[in-house]
Amino acid sequence: MSGDRFDRRFTRMRRLLDAKLGTAVRAGAPKDLTEGCRYVLAGGGKRVRGALVLLSCEAVGGRARDALNTGLAVETLHNFTLVHDDIMDNAPARRGRPTVHTRWDVNNALLVGDVLVGLAFAMLLKTRTAQPRRLVELLTRGLLDVCEGQALDLEFSHRSDVTVDEYFHMIEKKTGRLFGTAAELGAAVGGGSAREAAALRAFGHHLGRAFQIQDDLLDVTADRRRFGKAIGGDIMEGKRTFLMLKALERARGKDRAYLRRALHFSTARHPARNAGVIAGVTDLYRRYGVIDEARTVIGLNTTLALKNLEQLRPGPATGMLRWLSELMMNRES
Amino acid sequence: MSGDRFDRRFTRMRRLLDAKLGTAVRAGAPKDLTEGCRYVLAGGGKRVRGALVLLSCEAVGGRARDALNTGLAVETLHNFTLVHDDIMDNAPARRGRPTVHTRWDVNNALLVGDVLVGLAFAMLLKTRTAQPRRLVELLTRGLLDVCEGQALDLEFSHRSDVTVDEYFHMIEKKTGRLFGTAAELGAAVGGGSAREAAALRAFGHHLGRAFQIQDDLLDVTADRRRFGKAIGGDIMEGKRTFLMLKALERARGKDRAYLRRALHFSTARHPARNAGVIAGVTDLYRRYGVIDEARTVIGLNTTLALKNLEQLRPGPATGMLRWLSELMMNRES
Repeated sequence: MSGDRFDRRFTRMRRLLDAKLGTAVRAGAPKDLTEGCRYVLAGGGKRVRGALVLLSCEAVGGRARDALNTGLAVETLHNFTLVHDDIMDNAPARRGRPTVHTRWDVNNALLVGDVLVGLAFAMLLKTRTAQPRRLVELLTRGLLDVCEGQALDLEFSHRSDVTVDEYFHMIEKKTGRLFGTAAELGAAVGGGSAREAAALRAFGHHLGRAFQIQDDLLDVTADRRRFGKAIGGDIMEGKRTFLMLKALERARGKDRAYLRRALHFSTARHPARNAGVIAGVTDLYRRYGVIDEARTVIGLNTTLALKNLEQLRPGPATGMLRWLSELMMNRES
Repeated sequence: MSGDRFDRRFTRMRRLLDAKLGTAVRAGAPKDLTEGCRYVLAGGGKRVRGALVLLSCEAVGGRARDALNTGLAVETLHNFTLVHDDIMDNAPARRGRPTVHTRWDVNNALLVGDVLVGLAFAMLLKTRTAQPRRLVELLTRGLLDVCEGQALDLEFSHRSDVTVDEYFHMIEKKTGRLFGTAAELGAAVGGGSAREAAALRAFGHHLGRAFQIQDDLLDVTADRRRFGKAIGGDIMEGKRTFLMLKALERARGKDRAYLRRALHFSTARHPARNAGVIAGVTDLYRRYGVIDEARTVIGLNTTLALKNLEQLRPGPATGMLRWLSELMMNRES
């Protein structure tokens, strides 16, 4: 298939996931809860995790449509993490719209997240499969992994000695594992062998890792109009991103001191200085080569991800997984 | 069996649940998260939902020990609701100890709750059963129900026209359904018939409803030393309890106006007046007979619950469910 055909198929896949996501919300639930869930699930997003489920199913010889409910389950679980993470990060916007706790309040956002977990399991159970226990095991492990990843991320925000290795461990749990879970779930629904499932899981892991570092990178390199949130948001929040940790590892003297101060800079107290700090930190990122380094690490992880696809029978689905991986790494938002 | 023997068996059951609950927490997870989960699961509690699972399994001819992991799953899910509810209610203490968000912070409490949901599913999956899909369906429905019940409870706190019927609908979801789920899960593990499962579910529903109204009642009638939290807490928080709604339904004139003011009374602004308001509201509860009315409704629901047990083969387990129901309704904390 050509890139154009991949593109058209991915668009169809995203539309299908978008259209079906809202249908899971239970009728008759309290208004704010129902509206909050619909708001989140209708908020768009790349649907890359959902697509990963469908394509992994097909890559092992199954039919993508048989994995649709599983794909919806993974997308819903991912959206749960966004709603609760946004509460914890006190984030005002996501995908160009107010976050749930901003549009409603923290209590409703908390419950919307909880309900999304329930809906994820409910959708998973709609999958026709001979091994429901296996599917639930995988989704449960994915849930525990992302929570642990987020806990590490929180822990890092209170520490000043986080290493790049610790960062890799954190994003492995916070992002890598759910990508891996998505791919392994697709393999399970499609009846793939243990070897195929392991290859797809490893593919997902590496892809997720690359995806997260790309996210860190976009925080400073993205075009503001396409990004859906403010540029430099990670810098303002004092996030321990790949860029920041690598820059701290490399910088010495007054540059290092500047980065340290930026990490503890309080946005709320000095709003007028925000732009200056973002520009200053970004400049150091460039000077210490960490932006190039991030691109190298993203490329490396994408290569490692793709290497795993060689263990699968070649076909349209593996071709599309390859295309999707490259698309994700070259995205601008 | 005599009451003494029931008592000893219930104590053994609680100890078993207590001892096994902590084992579910995953090793290697971030420290605050692990400690938070252990803190919650080691916090005691009546373990009535867990016992309900074990006894319902036995009541349909299964072995209580085969339902142990299912009982642990239900207890864990229940503890998740407590952690998140305490955040939403801004509650400082639970069972005589600081709540998770007080002892750590809101972010950690949020994640501890999320992880407990994952652990509940993980424990459920350890159950040996021919119908894992059914078990997961039941727990998922239980999760969605309690979230919807809590959302209604939140919604009520912003409304001044909540009726007693709406209150019953709310506690049905918030408490009744999880009791029903516990009993039905036990029946499923024990291989009970559809008729037995339905009878046990109905038993749980009514018991849960009686249990919740008893909780409302204990807020004003309990002995402070045994209660583990402050007496009159519901009054201070302006909760729409059975007592308050029934009193508002019956009172007219200045008594009604007093109750309305108490509902909007701000604890934080007038701490010195707390005791006076609690005494004033409690006095009106007595004068309008709503404390007696609560006892009547509790008795009625307990009777309805027990009526369902007549559809099961009589035996030690049904005897013990009967004993446990009466114990719960005569409890002092």
